[in-house]
Amino acid sequence: MTASINASTTFAPLLVDLLEEIDFDQEGGAAHALVERLYPFCRSITGNGVRRSLRLLRETIPLALPEVVSHTRVFDWTVPDEWNVRDAYIMNEAGERLVDFRKSNLHVLNYSIPVNRTMSLAELRPHLFTIPEAPDWIPYRTSYYQKNWGFCLTQRQLDQFEEEEYHVYIDSTLHPGHLTYGEFRIQGETDDEVLISCHCCHPSLCNDNLSGMAVAARLAALLHGLSLRYSYRFLWIPGTIGSITWLALNEAILPRIKHGLVLSCVGDSGKFTYKRSRRGNAEIDRAVEHVLTHSGHEFQRLDFAPHGYDERQYCSPGINLPVGCFMRTPNGCYPEYHTSADDLSLISPFALGETLAQLLRVIQVLEQNRRYMNLNSKCEPQLGRRGLYRQLGGMQDRNDVEDAMFWVLNFSDGDHDLLDIAVRSGIEFQGISKAAELLREEGLLKLI
Amino acid sequence: MTASINASTTFAPLLVDLLEEIDFDQEGGAAHALVERLYPFCRSITGNGVRRSLRLLRETIPLALPEVVSHTRVFDWTVPDEWNVRDAYIMNEAGERLVDFRKSNLHVLNYSIPVNRTMSLAELRPHLFTIPEAPDWIPYRTSYYQKNWGFCLTQRQLDQFEEEEYHVYIDSTLHPGHLTYGEFRIQGETDDEVLISCHCCHPSLCNDNLSGMAVAARLAALLHGLSLRYSYRFLWIPGTIGSITWLALNEAILPRIKHGLVLSCVGDSGKFTYKRSRRGNAEIDRAVEHVLTHSGHEFQRLDFAPHGYDERQYCSPGINLPVGCFMRTPNGCYPEYHTSADDLSLISPFALGETLAQLLRVIQVLEQNRRYMNLNSKCEPQLGRRGLYRQLGGMQDRNDVEDAMFWVLNFSDGDHDLLDIAVRSGIEFQGISKAAELLREEGLLKLI
Amino acid sequence: MTASINASTTFAPLLVDLLEEIDFDQEGGAAHALVERLYPFCRSITGNGVRRSLRLLRETIPLALPEVVSHTRVFDWTVPDEWNVRDAYIMNEAGERLVDFRKSNLHVLNYSIPVNRTMSLAELRPHLFTIPEAPDWIPYRTSYYQKNWGFCLTQRQLDQFEEEEYHVYIDSTLHPGHLTYGEFRIQGETDDEVLISCHCCHPSLCNDNLSGMAVAARLAALLHGLSLRYSYRFLWIPGTIGSITWLALNEAILPRIKHGLVLSCVGDSGKFTYKRSRRGNAEIDRAVEHVLTHSGHEFQRLDFAPHGYDERQYCSPGINLPVGCFMRTPNGCYPEYHTSADDLSLISPFALGETLAQLLRVIQVLEQNRRYMNLNSKCEPQLGRRGLYRQLGGMQDRNDVEDAMFWVLNFSDGDHDLLDIAVRSGIEFQGISKAAELLREEGLLKLI
Repeated sequence: MTASINASTTFAPLLVDLLEEIDFDQEGGAAHALVERLYPFCRSITGNGVRRSLRLLRETIPLALPEVVSHTRVFDWTVPDEWNVRDAYIMNEAGERLVDFRKSNLHVLNYSIPVNRTMSLAELRPHLFTIPEAPDWIPYRTSYYQKNWGFCLTQRQLDQFEEEEYHVYIDSTLHPGHLTYGEFRIQGETDDEVLISCHCCHPSLCNDNLSGMAVAARLAALLHGLSLRYSYRFLWIPGTIGSITWLALNEAILPRIKHGLVLSCVGDSGKFTYKRSRRGNAEIDRAVEHVLTHSGHEFQRLDFAPHGYDERQYCSPGINLPVGCFMRTPNGCYPEYHTSADDLSLISPFALGETLAQLLRVIQVLEQNRRYMNLNSKCEPQLGRRGLYRQLGGMQDRNDVEDAMFWVLNFSDGDHDLLDIAVRSGIEFQGISKAAELLREEGLLKLI
Repeated sequence: MTASINASTTFAPLLVDLLEEIDFDQEGGAAHALVERLYPFCRSITGNGVRRSLRLLRETIPLALPEVVSHTRVFDWTVPDEWNVRDAYIMNEAGERLVDFRKSNLHVLNYSIPVNRTMSLAELRPHLFTIPEAPDWIPYRTSYYQKNWGFCLTQRQLDQFEEEEYHVYIDSTLHPGHLTYGEFRIQGETDDEVLISCHCCHPSLCNDNLSGMAVAARLAALLHGLSLRYSYRFLWIPGTIGSITWLALNEAILPRIKHGLVLSCVGDSGKFTYKRSRRGNAEIDRAVEHVLTHSGHEFQRLDFAPHGYDERQYCSPGINLPVGCFMRTPNGCYPEYHTSADDLSLISPFALGETLAQLLRVIQVLEQNRRYMNLNSKCEPQLGRRGLYRQLGGMQDRNDVEDAMFWVLNFSDGDHDLLDIAVRSGIEFQGISKAAELLREEGLLKLI
Repeated sequence: MTASINASTTFAPLLVDLLEEIDFDQEGGAAHALVERLYPFCRSITGNGVRRSLRLLRETIPLALPEVVSHTRVFDWTVPDEWNVRDAYIMNEAGERLVDFRKSNLHVLNYSIPVNRTMSLAELRPHLFTIPEAPDWIPYRTSYYQKNWGFCLTQRQLDQFEEEEYHVYIDSTLHPGHLTYGEFRIQGETDDEVLISCHCCHPSLCNDNLSGMAVAARLAALLHGLSLRYSYRFLWIPGTIGSITWLALNEAILPRIKHGLVLSCVGDSGKFTYKRSRRGNAEIDRAVEHVLTHSGHEFQRLDFAPHGYDERQYCSPGINLPVGCFMRTPNGCYPEYHTSADDLSLISPFALGETLAQLLRVIQVLEQNRRYMNLNSKCEPQLGRRGLYRQLGGMQDRNDVEDAMFWVLNFSDGDHDLLDIAVRSGIEFQGISKAAELLREEGLLKLI
């Protein structure tokens, strides 16, 4: 079911070279174009909308579309019936469609059962959802596991409803079918994996989470074909039920997942937010925080908490994978969250490109982070006779490369990896990594 | 010697119900009434004053009054002779009582030997104690273990002394007798104990420590008859020698003491102060700090230091019990400390009631704090089908009960008790505890 | 090779007495006088300048001058040829010495090979070093391991050079000989050692590091003859190659080194700086920080970093001794660093005396820091009957000595040494140490 592509051919390009060449504005533009095309589809946790969305991603990367049959038991949950909707409206006595699914996917309560009846406003009223304090926005509401039907509309629309009879019509189906998700795996030199996961179940909402879906696709496309140490697994899955399903069906794989990120809300103009894995000090946590610290961007760190996105499942106590959540403005922290105002105007190619840049730098840290042993640990080795140290002594200024070499030598004692040394020294990881490479080439370090 | 009452009858009321019904103003009033009645007695570390004080507490709870015979060896100390005083004065040549024990218990140096002599002011002077910087206040001074006699008086009194002969009279006795203390024990479901200790040796000083004596008595009365998990042991003991005596005679009990508090200076209007146990992070320390954090009151935390009250003995290195000290304004930090100005005007029913409220909440945390194991630790359990989760999805606001359930589920991994989870989540303990109860009833948690 | 003097004779004076008598201004004056005499010599990492400098220190203490033959392998390094220089100049066509070694030792690139040629300014130019931003100062430059020659001069001198032929003359030799260092050891009661190390290789630079050399000599002279617990080893060694050489030749001694300090830049008027050992929380680190905290001086703490002085070698991962670096303004942090402006005007007797005072107090802490066990750990012992506690009770103020005794008693549990207790209590170490001595004399503590 998984698309697997072996990237470790002899002539595969390197991530370090990619990072020097890449035009992140252009990459952000490509991600934004994907969002624009995905925006009109009516997605849910199952059904043709999500299926069609994932197929569109195949233009970018050859992902697999595994399908899990309805009613499959997945840990404590059961895969629900597949939901599809074709049309829906509320029509007044004059035959006007006051609320019309064809105008916004959000108008239908997600997972509504079919309905085709005439009723009074009083009877209809409990099935209408608005946001009184944002009267021009349609809310996004769902009822996956409790059979219900309803309409989401603007408060201004609701204010025009009068006491009359309404024809209420939802042409939906809830039948045994499948839960569909997207999976793409890049084989690296080792079977150790980095997991990138995003939820793909929200209908026309851009930041949450077409941004994550598009960035994951572009990231996969950029890594695909590179020479990589880790294997990379990308998942586009319906929120909660999707990650639970994947985890339940792939338990054997979990020990191989060494690092992971959930991507969501990565297209708005807010500062970056990193929510740590449940472990709190995993390598992925240190890597993301190091990269963001040196990014020149302000960012916020959050400790793990059991609310948010699929990190809730990846970090449940019996799974406890080192998976953090990479965001810009977090869920619930911007006013347009889960409303029709989370539209194309909320995100930008520039912001998507910036996100991609940080993610690639995090991956570069993971790829290059190693633990070395100083083979010459009694006093400093003489770097000068190896051409690694300045010829002239006495200068006041410190040389960055020399400085990094001394940090690597002093702390390559078996207890510290390069990322530890970068954090301790305050030197950006690439400087530490290059210093280690110079020292290794001279036979002064041994990989452990 | 110990009054023991079994509280775990089938129909015993619960602390949680008590906390909902209780009127803390009324409770504070009852404590204050106790202080008013105890105020006139001349207490010391032994003698009839303390005996009479403890007997008065028997109107509130049926405490036992163990008596330890003078000269008993208790660790490095020896129980001293019993001291009693009937009258004392300094009379001038004109026959006026310039200093008169009948006007204040503080006028006699506590543990003064008897004296009945005429002497010059020069000879008398070294036996007179005042506070020059607070000329209207009588100091409180003691000389328990060094035979001495003296008078404490106001500076204004002393200023009126002239060069003449004085008749100095102290009608006291120091004879073999007993050291008396009060002890009251409530048997809970288990023999594990919570210790509440206060010193009862100070004469007419209200905040230090009639406040602690009265609050302990009211607390015992409130807990008495409840259905409790822990057993509760209350001690009213003379400072230092009392706790040393009790510890020396009850070493076999010490392993059962799981938590403890020393109560002192709990009736003034200052903010709460919690001095941690020597362990620093004992459950009692975390419980008190959690309750005070959520109390809406400002409070200060102090690390353990080997000065203060009987926590010095409970936290001596060879005893090292998890006993903290609960105060409002600490000893030495208010100007009226150890003077006649620590009188009824310094304390209030309201402050005593607030103290009682915090202590009961701390006890509620101890009673309910448990460690559970999530029985469904791989991904979240589906709370919705158990009726534990909202029916409609997509809302921005988080539901407090749901939030608490997710915290309990995620951190009930064997390493965290409910108090840990409350502290980590920032949710008040009762919310966490109720969530755990809901989850346990659904079979999702197991007590460990 | 090592001068060893046994200080533990019966009548040897005590450090504590020395500290009460010492006049630190006078001591600073003596150190300054040493610097003045050492200033004119042209030192390098080998050669007669350093040899002559160390011989001059013999007027202060009878140090040994071990010599290590050129080309000896020391870990990854090789002892270089010995360098000596007699004269050097740049003469213009008019026969004027534009740059003249006789005016400043800094004018010659340290370790210059001999040269005696006539050349154009263009050919000469790459061999001339100035500091354009400090046009009146001569830089200090070296080329120990890369054969080169050159002159260091002021920018103003260089500005007067015209396009003409120059006679360039350096009368130096680079021949097999010796690396010379100074070593002085004081035998204490135990063979456990405190290492004091300073680099002695810089030519006419006062703060870096004639200050360290002179302070180390005075410190040795002050300790010499005292009754000491530790043995003390003082090293005056050429930077880098000297410490590497000493470590390579004395590996068997290293397990005995319990504490150490590198001294450098200790004569300027800047605040104290302590750079921690690589271990970060070694006893020497805690001792220095405690002394400086109570010194009344502002000071800065730096974590270990693998740049600086010989602590780089002592704290290399395979050596990892508990050696910190004691400085005033650190290397590179004052503008005169490694220039001719690091002259006698930069340092003062007063600053050198202050440094000596702090170092002696640190040594006093090391000498007196012990771990005791409270022999009466169940409750407090009764200090009153031993005459260790005030006779009169009830006073508000705490007595410093009593306070210190209670801290020592409570934390002498096997886990804390006296320095730990001083840090925890906030009481200056001497107070804690005196309290421990009182308690030990009373049989309440046992040395462990």
